[in-house]
Amino acid sequence: MTTTDRSELAAPALPQCPSADGIAAGVRFGRESAAVACDAALERIAATEPAVRAWCHLDPTEAAARAQAIDAAGARGLLAGVPVAVKDIIDTVDQPTENGTPLDEGRRPSADATVVSRLRAAGALILGKAVTTELACGAANATRNPHALSRTPGGSSSGSAATVAAGGVPLALGTQTAGSVVRPAAFCGVWGMKPSFGTIPRTGVTRLSRTLDHVGVLAGSVQDVALGIDAISGDDGLDQASAGRAPTRLAAALALPLGRPRLAFIKQPAWEEVEPGAAAALEAAAAACGAAPLTLGSPFDDAAAVHLGIMRREIAHALAPWYERGAADLSDTIRAHIEAGRKIDTDGYLALLDAADAMRRAFEHEMRPFDAALTPAAPGAAPEGLAFTGSRFQTMLWTMLGVPAVNVPVLSVDDLPLGLQVVGRYGADATTLRAAAWCAGRLQEAGE
Amino acid sequence: MTTTDRSELAAPALPQCPSADGIAAGVRFGRESAAVACDAALERIAATEPAVRAWCHLDPTEAAARAQAIDAAGARGLLAGVPVAVKDIIDTVDQPTENGTPLDEGRRPSADATVVSRLRAAGALILGKAVTTELACGAANATRNPHALSRTPGGSSSGSAATVAAGGVPLALGTQTAGSVVRPAAFCGVWGMKPSFGTIPRTGVTRLSRTLDHVGVLAGSVQDVALGIDAISGDDGLDQASAGRAPTRLAAALALPLGRPRLAFIKQPAWEEVEPGAAAALEAAAAACGAAPLTLGSPFDDAAAVHLGIMRREIAHALAPWYERGAADLSDTIRAHIEAGRKIDTDGYLALLDAADAMRRAFEHEMRPFDAALTPAAPGAAPEGLAFTGSRFQTMLWTMLGVPAVNVPVLSVDDLPLGLQVVGRYGADATTLRAAAWCAGRLQEAGE
Repeated sequence: MTTTDRSELAAPALPQCPSADGIAAGVRFGRESAAVACDAALERIAATEPAVRAWCHLDPTEAAARAQAIDAAGARGLLAGVPVAVKDIIDTVDQPTENGTPLDEGRRPSADATVVSRLRAAGALILGKAVTTELACGAANATRNPHALSRTPGGSSSGSAATVAAGGVPLALGTQTAGSVVRPAAFCGVWGMKPSFGTIPRTGVTRLSRTLDHVGVLAGSVQDVALGIDAISGDDGLDQASAGRAPTRLAAALALPLGRPRLAFIKQPAWEEVEPGAAAALEAAAAACGAAPLTLGSPFDDAAAVHLGIMRREIAHALAPWYERGAADLSDTIRAHIEAGRKIDTDGYLALLDAADAMRRAFEHEMRPFDAALTPAAPGAAPEGLAFTGSRFQTMLWTMLGVPAVNVPVLSVDDLPLGLQVVGRYGADATTLRAAAWCAGRLQEAGE
Repeated sequence: MTTTDRSELAAPALPQCPSADGIAAGVRFGRESAAVACDAALERIAATEPAVRAWCHLDPTEAAARAQAIDAAGARGLLAGVPVAVKDIIDTVDQPTENGTPLDEGRRPSADATVVSRLRAAGALILGKAVTTELACGAANATRNPHALSRTPGGSSSGSAATVAAGGVPLALGTQTAGSVVRPAAFCGVWGMKPSFGTIPRTGVTRLSRTLDHVGVLAGSVQDVALGIDAISGDDGLDQASAGRAPTRLAAALALPLGRPRLAFIKQPAWEEVEPGAAAALEAAAAACGAAPLTLGSPFDDAAAVHLGIMRREIAHALAPWYERGAADLSDTIRAHIEAGRKIDTDGYLALLDAADAMRRAFEHEMRPFDAALTPAAPGAAPEGLAFTGSRFQTMLWTMLGVPAVNVPVLSVDDLPLGLQVVGRYGADATTLRAAAWCAGRLQEAGE
């Protein structure tokens, strides 16, 4: 077991952030304003940002002007006046979107991503842009873990998780192609959810992988996860995966009484990498929640290789323009993805997609007796150092299956947050989030 | 213009088939039974089948036994007692599924396709299996056009369209990867619809193309199209394209008053192949419906090549097992698809998918002012001869876009059915079918 050395960099005192739910209610009823919420967020961020470095674009003057405009328009939406962080691979028309790479320095999108325009339509304030790792799949950038500054916040949605954990904003957008929402949420001790593939449209989000990319939400409470996803999900004719899909109604689903869900506990696909202290905490949590062991069968044996192959083959295609423009300015990690991906021929690639489909069908069968499953979100607490943003092995399978995945931030190990992941059946976003909320309540009771 | 020579093969008198709607209502209210509906269908089929050859598996004794079992169970579903034809690439556990190729002679699936189990759950009688072209993309099989026996019924859902046209059954399942539902519906003069990609699950349907395959419905009336799709659409965790999607409620949508839709008239992507008589009839229909000309922009220029490339590349992968087992037993058409498809490398393939996505986004933009668009379903009436099942150029774009497409069987040319296709925005299955129903009403009035 590693021990925590915080002698060199003392973690800052983390301010308490009001919930998105609370801010929006206050703004809608005229008790508060977007401008006041904006100022308060800027003040909280100023207190921790020098240590945490979660933001890559944050102009207080411009943010305040946008907040005043929201007040002037009389915002009434689900997220009226709520300051939100947007991962810097998601296009914003009024702020740069630089994808975490020097190759996109100064890039200004000509339109908002669909999720950003939906946030604005819901009355949210796009406060600024949160740090991403290089092109959301390469080298780490400067963000530190607010709970232990010498440790990674996880990636690739590093800044999104870190600013929520540091009390900066109640809600942030992230994306996940392997584990980039759930893993940083786990390391930073915040709620994070990527709903089913297709639930949230990806129009205007820099693409890595047509079949694996998901948008997700990081937040300080499960209610805010629900609110955030409800505001941005559903039909977008510009992204075929989302076209024709109904928006979620997760907040309404959470408001119903939470009955005990039928839970599985899955120690796959990579329990062997889970550290002993984390394993003990996860076993205890599963027992406290009454989760029944579930062992996935042979179709899942090659999950890691299948995921990596699909991801690399699609990254090689999607990031080819960056590679052509400046391979030397890309990290070794991305160059390795691209060069390995290019070697996968079309039948090999289509066979990987078939293997992923077979796992989707098998998981659907295996989960029939259950509402949701518990599984690790990471092998342990956030690793030391900023270079390595953490293992992908606890999250990549659920990303590849396209099923809903939630980080529940209630466990800890060595005084650091430890992620507990709740996954569910494809399309069962509400059932999965309800199960996650029930587990959080059960474990908080058990801990008291 | 071709003229119709029916001197050698006189088309049979086509019996009138009661609607699925009417049969199901009769069975539910106890005025009729599945057994009686089955006997009547078998009698109608016997009168035309020697000439039309729509069925590849139809055992009257077994069908009657299945109908009696439905009656004994007291069927109450949407399709209670309705005899249905199922294209022979769709798995049925109690009947062979031979994919129109000698390579699958005697094949007996171990489970029903999702759509077949949903038909049974809705009380339908799977009367038998309808002729498909070879593996739904190769050589024509024996079916003839009921309106002109020397002509093709269209393909690949040849038997499904022909038996509905010949008054055999009110409802049939087909599939479409290029134009295999809409084109045979057009040539046989019946209603046909493939709803949006993902609306109907494909589990248990022999795959040609993961991104282009659709299931669709052929029927004698627009109400029966709606009923059929309502019975089989929606969430199937075993097909990711359909997972999490809501079932359609097309019958309810059709029951609301039909207001005049905002219609476009699109003379693309291949108006140049439309025969003069057909062009005149289509122009007149568009004018009668008040459709405004819409010209699609440059992203659509390569539509035919993009569709063909994706289809061939995916067919090469999906049909590889058949090619390995017996290339010599495959038609030249399929061998050519496979051999050309194999030459498309992964970046080429992914670039084709990107081009299709760009067309999807462009179509979504172009269609914003409209509820639906009119366009040809085929270049003219069914061509002479059985070998060529018709042009793919009027249907392949809408298949590739994944948008809803309906054949409206109200026009004719040279005393033969002429298809009018109504297409809509992705996900707008109900709006598109309502527009198609409105057009049918308008054109019937105009013709009187």
